[in-house]
Amino acid sequence: MKNNVSIGLLGLGVVGSGVIRLIEDHQEELVHQLGCGVDVKGVLVRNLEKTRDVQVDRSYLTTDPNDVLHNPEIDVIVEVMGGIDEARKYILEAFATRKHVVTANKDLIALHGQELQEAASRNQCDLFYEASVAGGIPILRGLVDGLVSDRIQQVMGIVNGTTNYILTKMNEEGVTYEDALKEAQELGFAEADPTADVEGLDAARKMAILSRLAFSTDVELEDVEVKGIANLELADLQYGKQLGYTMKLIGYSNFHNQHVEVSVQPTFLSNQHPLAAVKNEYNAVYVNGEAVGETMFYGAGAGSLPTATAIMSDVVAVITNMRLGVNGRRFVSPRFKKELTPPEERFGQFYIRMHVKDEVGAFAAISHVFNQMDISFERILQIPRSKTELAEVILITHRTALATFQESMNKLYTLDVVASVESSFRVEGDGKK
Amino acid sequence: MKNNVSIGLLGLGVVGSGVIRLIEDHQEELVHQLGCGVDVKGVLVRNLEKTRDVQVDRSYLTTDPNDVLHNPEIDVIVEVMGGIDEARKYILEAFATRKHVVTANKDLIALHGQELQEAASRNQCDLFYEASVAGGIPILRGLVDGLVSDRIQQVMGIVNGTTNYILTKMNEEGVTYEDALKEAQELGFAEADPTADVEGLDAARKMAILSRLAFSTDVELEDVEVKGIANLELADLQYGKQLGYTMKLIGYSNFHNQHVEVSVQPTFLSNQHPLAAVKNEYNAVYVNGEAVGETMFYGAGAGSLPTATAIMSDVVAVITNMRLGVNGRRFVSPRFKKELTPPEERFGQFYIRMHVKDEVGAFAAISHVFNQMDISFERILQIPRSKTELAEVILITHRTALATFQESMNKLYTLDVVASVESSFRVEGDGKK
Repeated sequence: MKNNVSIGLLGLGVVGSGVIRLIEDHQEELVHQLGCGVDVKGVLVRNLEKTRDVQVDRSYLTTDPNDVLHNPEIDVIVEVMGGIDEARKYILEAFATRKHVVTANKDLIALHGQELQEAASRNQCDLFYEASVAGGIPILRGLVDGLVSDRIQQVMGIVNGTTNYILTKMNEEGVTYEDALKEAQELGFAEADPTADVEGLDAARKMAILSRLAFSTDVELEDVEVKGIANLELADLQYGKQLGYTMKLIGYSNFHNQHVEVSVQPTFLSNQHPLAAVKNEYNAVYVNGEAVGETMFYGAGAGSLPTATAIMSDVVAVITNMRLGVNGRRFVSPRFKKELTPPEERFGQFYIRMHVKDEVGAFAAISHVFNQMDISFERILQIPRSKTELAEVILITHRTALATFQESMNKLYTLDVVASVESSFRVEGDGKK
Repeated sequence: MKNNVSIGLLGLGVVGSGVIRLIEDHQEELVHQLGCGVDVKGVLVRNLEKTRDVQVDRSYLTTDPNDVLHNPEIDVIVEVMGGIDEARKYILEAFATRKHVVTANKDLIALHGQELQEAASRNQCDLFYEASVAGGIPILRGLVDGLVSDRIQQVMGIVNGTTNYILTKMNEEGVTYEDALKEAQELGFAEADPTADVEGLDAARKMAILSRLAFSTDVELEDVEVKGIANLELADLQYGKQLGYTMKLIGYSNFHNQHVEVSVQPTFLSNQHPLAAVKNEYNAVYVNGEAVGETMFYGAGAGSLPTATAIMSDVVAVITNMRLGVNGRRFVSPRFKKELTPPEERFGQFYIRMHVKDEVGAFAAISHVFNQMDISFERILQIPRSKTELAEVILITHRTALATFQESMNKLYTLDVVASVESSFRVEGDGKK
C-alpha cells in the first residue's frame, strides 16, 4: 500500500465542500481502485472563521495561496475558486512547482485553455477540466476518446440548467419569462443576477470548450454567436408547441469542409429530437459522429455533488497517471487551424412569426418572396387576430442557407402587406428520429 | 514516429469489416493522437473466396487461427467472430502469447468474463469489451470511471434495439406484436430467428455485464430474471399509454444493503422518465448514482460502424497503454461477494389488468385485498366490456415489495368477482423528473 496522495483545494464553496465530502465518503473505494488513499492537506479560503458544513482540519485552512501552492506534500491542486486572473496565476504557479491541476472553471478554460494546457504539457503535468462543462456528465472524455476513430460532425447541447428550467416552465405551464425566472431564483436554479445564464454567455463558454475538443480546432469564446432568452415571448413558445416543436436554448456547433460554426440561441427543436425531452434543470449533449451516428449524454449540469463527482474522476485520472508515471503525456494539440463557416454555408430551418394585413393577395405576396429565393415551407399557420385588421402568420421553412434566409427577411420588410416581423428562430431536429 | 501497431482480426463479418474501414479512413487521426499508425496483419475467416465489401490484402486472410494468434508482428487481437467455445479458446491463447484482446462478444463476456479478465491480468495483457454492451455508447468506461468516487444505486437500460423497435411500432402505430416483428425483420432490425432478442436473453447478457461493473460484484448470467416481449398484448400497451406510461423492455438492476437485483422484463415507464423517449432501434442506459444523481447515455446499440467505433476506442486504449508500458494494470477485481435481493426487499410499482364481474361490491372486494396488504393505488381505470358481463379493471399500485404484491395477487385469484388476471407488469419512473 502506497502513502496517501494529498490534494490542495483553492476555494471551499459549494463545489469544494462537495469534493471534501466525496473524498471522506469514498476512501475505501479510492484505496481499492488506486491502491492508495487520498487526503486534503491545504485549503485556500477567504475567511478562516466562516462556519462550514463540512469537517476540515482548521490547521489546513489558509488565506495565503503559497501555503497550498508551495506545500511539498501536495501533488494535485483542485481549483474551485472561480474568476479569471487570480485562478490563472495560481494554476500557472502550480505547474511551475510540478503540481497537477483539476479545475471546474469554465470561464477560465474558455478564455485561456490553450495557454494553460501548453504550460501543463511543458511541465509534464496534467490539466483536466471535466467539471467545467455539464457538471456530472462525462462528456469531455467521451469526445476525446471518440475522436480518434470517428469524425464528429455536429454537437448540440442544452448546457445551461437555469435557462432550461425557465423554458420548461414556460413551455409546460404557460408562465411568462419573468414569472419563470422568479421561480427559478426562489428554488436556487437561477442567481440573483441571472445575466450570464439568460443572455447565453455561460452556455457560450461551454460550447467553445466542447467545439474545441470535438473538432480539434482552436475555437475561441468570441467565435460563438450568442443570443439569450430574456426577450422570448410566450406566444412563440405556444405556437411552436402547436406545430410539434419545443423551444430550448441550444448550443449548436458543426464542422464541415474544415469550417466551424458555433452558436448559442433559442431554437425550436422537433419533438422527435432526443434533446426535446430534456426537462427542468437537466443538461444534455447530443453528438453526431460520422461513424457512431447519434449519441446523447444526459445528466445534472450543476450542483455540489454532481460537479464534485466530475472533479473526482479527474483527480483519479491524475493519480492513476502518477502511479504509472505518465502525467502530461495525453494532451494533443488541435489538428486544424480554425476557419469560421460563412453565412452562405450555414444551413438550417427557420421559424418566422409576422403580422400581416388581412387582405386578398397578402399571402401570395409573401410566398412570392420565398419562392424567388427558392425557400419552401415545412409548416404554415395563419390565425386571425381579434381587434385588429392584422393576421398572425407563422412559417417554418425547409432547410436553407442562413444568408438566403436573411435576404428573404430583408425583402419581407419591404412588402406593404407585412406590418411587422415579430420574431424568428432557428429550427432543428426535423427528419431525425 | 514509431512503427505501426498491427492488429489481427478473428472474424470478418459486418463488425470486422467496419473495423477495417475505420482503420483505413482514420489513419491520419490515429497517427496524430497515438504517434503511430495502425494496420491489420492477419484476418481469420471461414471462407477465403468470399467476396468482401472491404479491401483486405488477400495474403493476410487465413482459415488457420494460428496464423493470427502466433503471428509475432501482431500485438492486438480483435475478436468479432462470436460464439462461445472457440472464441474463449482463442482469446486465452492470445493472452498466453502476450497479445491484448478487444472483443465485442457479449455472450462470451457474460459467461466467462471473470475467467478471461484474470487470464489477461496474469499475462499483463489488456482485455477490453466496450462494444459488447450498447454498441456505440461508451457506457462501460463511464461506469468504471464513475465508480471510484460515487456509489451507483441503480442501472436501467434499453439495451436491445430489436425489441425497442417492435415496442415503438406497437406503441405509436398500434400494430400487433406479430406485424411489428415482421416489419423489423424486413428492415434488418430483427433476425430470422428472433428468439434471443424477443425472449430477453440478449438484454440479460448485457445487464449481467453492466451490473458486474456498476456494483463491483460478481453477477452471473443466471442471476438475471428474464421475461420477454413475445406474449405482449396491444391492449396493455394502449391502456398504459392512456395512463401516461410507455411499455419498454427494461433491464433493471439495483444494489442496496449489499444486495443486488437484476432483471429484464417488459415494464411500464412513466412518460416523465428520460428512457421513455428512447425510440425505434436506439439504446440507452440510465444510471443513478448517489452523488452524481441521474445520468443517461443514448445512442445506436448495434450496426457495423457504431460497434466498430467502440472497438476502435478500445484498440486506442490498448495502444496508449502499450506506449506507456502499463497494459493489464487497470483491472480491479470485484469488491463485493454477490448476494441476491430477496423478494421482500425488492420494491416497485405494479400494473395489473383483470376481468371483473360487473356487480355491486366487486371493486370493494378487490380493494379490500390490497388494503389488507397495505398497498394503495396510483391509478385506477375501469372500462365496461361490451358483449360480456365482465368489466376490465386496470390498477397501478404505489411502491410496494414484490413479495407483498405477489401475495395480493394470490389472494385476488381466490375472489369470486375476479374472473381472470390478464396481465401484470412492473412500473418504473413515477415521481422522477
